[in-house]
Amino acid sequence: MPTFPADRSYAEDLDAADPLAGFRDRFVREDPSLIYLDGNSLGPLPRATQARIAEVVAQEWGAGLVRSWHRWIGLPGQVGDLLGEHLIGAAPGQVAVCDSATVNLYKLACAALDARPGRSVIVTDDDNFPTDRYVLQGIAAQRGAELRMIGTDMDAGVAAGAVAEAVDERTALVSLSHVAYRSGALADMAQITGVVHEAGALALWDLCHSAGAVPVELDASGADLAIGCTYKYLNAGPGAPAFLYVRRELQQALRQPVWGWFGQRDQFEMGPAYDPAPGIGQFLTGTPQIVGTVAVQEGVRLLGEAGIGRLRAKAVALTGYLIGLADAWLAPNGVTVASPRPDERRGAHVTLAHPEAWRISQELIREGVIGDYRTPDRLRLGPAPAYTRFTDVWDALDILRRIMTDQTYLNVPAPRSVVT
Amino acid sequence: MPTFPADRSYAEDLDAADPLAGFRDRFVREDPSLIYLDGNSLGPLPRATQARIAEVVAQEWGAGLVRSWHRWIGLPGQVGDLLGEHLIGAAPGQVAVCDSATVNLYKLACAALDARPGRSVIVTDDDNFPTDRYVLQGIAAQRGAELRMIGTDMDAGVAAGAVAEAVDERTALVSLSHVAYRSGALADMAQITGVVHEAGALALWDLCHSAGAVPVELDASGADLAIGCTYKYLNAGPGAPAFLYVRRELQQALRQPVWGWFGQRDQFEMGPAYDPAPGIGQFLTGTPQIVGTVAVQEGVRLLGEAGIGRLRAKAVALTGYLIGLADAWLAPNGVTVASPRPDERRGAHVTLAHPEAWRISQELIREGVIGDYRTPDRLRLGPAPAYTRFTDVWDALDILRRIMTDQTYLNVPAPRSVVT
Repeated sequence: MPTFPADRSYAEDLDAADPLAGFRDRFVREDPSLIYLDGNSLGPLPRATQARIAEVVAQEWGAGLVRSWHRWIGLPGQVGDLLGEHLIGAAPGQVAVCDSATVNLYKLACAALDARPGRSVIVTDDDNFPTDRYVLQGIAAQRGAELRMIGTDMDAGVAAGAVAEAVDERTALVSLSHVAYRSGALADMAQITGVVHEAGALALWDLCHSAGAVPVELDASGADLAIGCTYKYLNAGPGAPAFLYVRRELQQALRQPVWGWFGQRDQFEMGPAYDPAPGIGQFLTGTPQIVGTVAVQEGVRLLGEAGIGRLRAKAVALTGYLIGLADAWLAPNGVTVASPRPDERRGAHVTLAHPEAWRISQELIREGVIGDYRTPDRLRLGPAPAYTRFTDVWDALDILRRIMTDQTYLNVPAPRSVVT
Repeated sequence: MPTFPADRSYAEDLDAADPLAGFRDRFVREDPSLIYLDGNSLGPLPRATQARIAEVVAQEWGAGLVRSWHRWIGLPGQVGDLLGEHLIGAAPGQVAVCDSATVNLYKLACAALDARPGRSVIVTDDDNFPTDRYVLQGIAAQRGAELRMIGTDMDAGVAAGAVAEAVDERTALVSLSHVAYRSGALADMAQITGVVHEAGALALWDLCHSAGAVPVELDASGADLAIGCTYKYLNAGPGAPAFLYVRRELQQALRQPVWGWFGQRDQFEMGPAYDPAPGIGQFLTGTPQIVGTVAVQEGVRLLGEAGIGRLRAKAVALTGYLIGLADAWLAPNGVTVASPRPDERRGAHVTLAHPEAWRISQELIREGVIGDYRTPDRLRLGPAPAYTRFTDVWDALDILRRIMTDQTYLNVPAPRSVVT
């Protein structure tokens, strides 16, 4: 691992040379002293999004009323295409913005099982994000399928070898997260998808912690299906609609289970029988939430302008710097790095481990540094590259060093109540 | 049917005596000359909602960031309770605001089928709203169940007798709309639910066209399940989250199919196995859309302040007046009333029939009157009681009379392209 000069001036130099430095001012920053390292949970508000929401509410809804559906009706596909182009490596016509990540995972996992008749095993990993595990567990229970859990080192994530051991001729679907929510471990999408395909199964990737954080190449990797949320690195706001990807060649063969009117061909003919729309449109369900969808559009535009290549380079630098400072300053106090150290194996957040992680996270918040706690003993710090400075990382780690040295976290009452 | 004085001064007198007249100014009205009779498709923007969205975006998301989840996490249930109290007759703990109406219908219909093992028939009516028919058709196809369609007179809606004939000991679920989307026909929820229960089936009511338009008494009627959208009479904006109702006694026995993390007990423990939250919370799925949910809250507050009793009285008066004027002015030009005439059989919108309904609807819009077209030959006019004046009805019908007499609708190009 590289080591870094411990002086703050080094971080200042990195900020001065940062080609993305100007993007920081594109976000609302109510409290300039706050260090926000939790954009991997809820991204901050882009100024353009605030203005756009106000405009859509006042002009499109308020003044335009029902007439605005002419401009709204195509948004799920248009914003999906934008996302595909700038951030997740998908050619047009394969991505739609709709529903929640949970509902989209349900829809696509059901569709995948139906597309592999005679196969009844779903594979995931035991450290996958809770909603993924629960949704797959529910589908398995409802369909008499088997949910096979890959035992995963929670700090290292899922390796292709472990997937190869888990899949066989009975496997219909392998559903994994591209970046692990806890450790930030980055899976090798292309390699693992290849392993899944060798077994004749479909690969469904959860991009919640990777879209906008790392380059995603859905088309190039051969991935079959993907879903993701938009309120983390895409900065679309709390509960903004999620997205889904279905590889073009699979769209005709797959049928999702929620047959809603927004997935209907000639929707406003309101005909007697469900007749799924051609293309990605059939994966829509009910009326799309418009305010949230335009927020996704603004969020994607902003990151597209920054460029996923530059964002990735800065995320690697920020997280590497954070790990270096943690090694130097926090290891003596029993705080260990619980994220992969090789740059190519890490998303855009870093997780530290300490038995008192929950109290430490609360004390950090009290000191103006927002990260978050994750079970069982983890402190997640997400220096999202669009708006985080190297000096933010230095300052946050400096505060954390003081908290650990002075043990001020012991002042935090023990019973925890966690919401993120 | 009552007849009305044909003079506009009669409408002016009714407006002057209207106890809800003041509520008109609680909505954004960009073009004061516009007559908006399509709030049954997309309700207008309440001023309080515009301000609240701006506040939530700026303060709760922008400034509060992830810390605001403490205030957001309870919203789906809190706003559900508010809706239950003011508008749909449900005691607390039985209503949640979440997902879309389509997804909620899917969730509850699946849960109902599972709760009636050995029964494999779903009953609906052949004029139910498209998304309802499609969702049920999909569930039937996926589960090898039978979808039995009650043949319905599209102007009269579904009667208890027809339901009694359709149900038997094989019926698991009867899913109907409380107010028919096309005709506005109002079903007798209590009587039909009784018929459904006699057959040992569960009753699921779609309240999309009745919540906020007519008094709904879910608890008192014995209804088992209900769903509805919020962007019509509840004025929560395009694609705002929908709601669902599950009668308290059924909540433990029912299990919905989308096992997401927001339906999990102790969600942030992120434990290995799905363990559904007690109560209505288990019917949530993914991360709730917050901006839309606060818009529902504002919409419900506004209608709650107006009072569903007063809203209903005014809706009856407005629709009755509209029917009276249509009979007097439009019947000679071949326009017929295609909604139930008895007040107690009608929701808050009126549908007229004419072979050229689509062109007429377009010409009306050109003249500043927004209603909407519905297949095959229907013109829907929704004088929503919270903001529609009796003079709006008079003016709209007067314009329509002129369009019919002068046949100006013939100038509208024939090929239609419908979006609502």
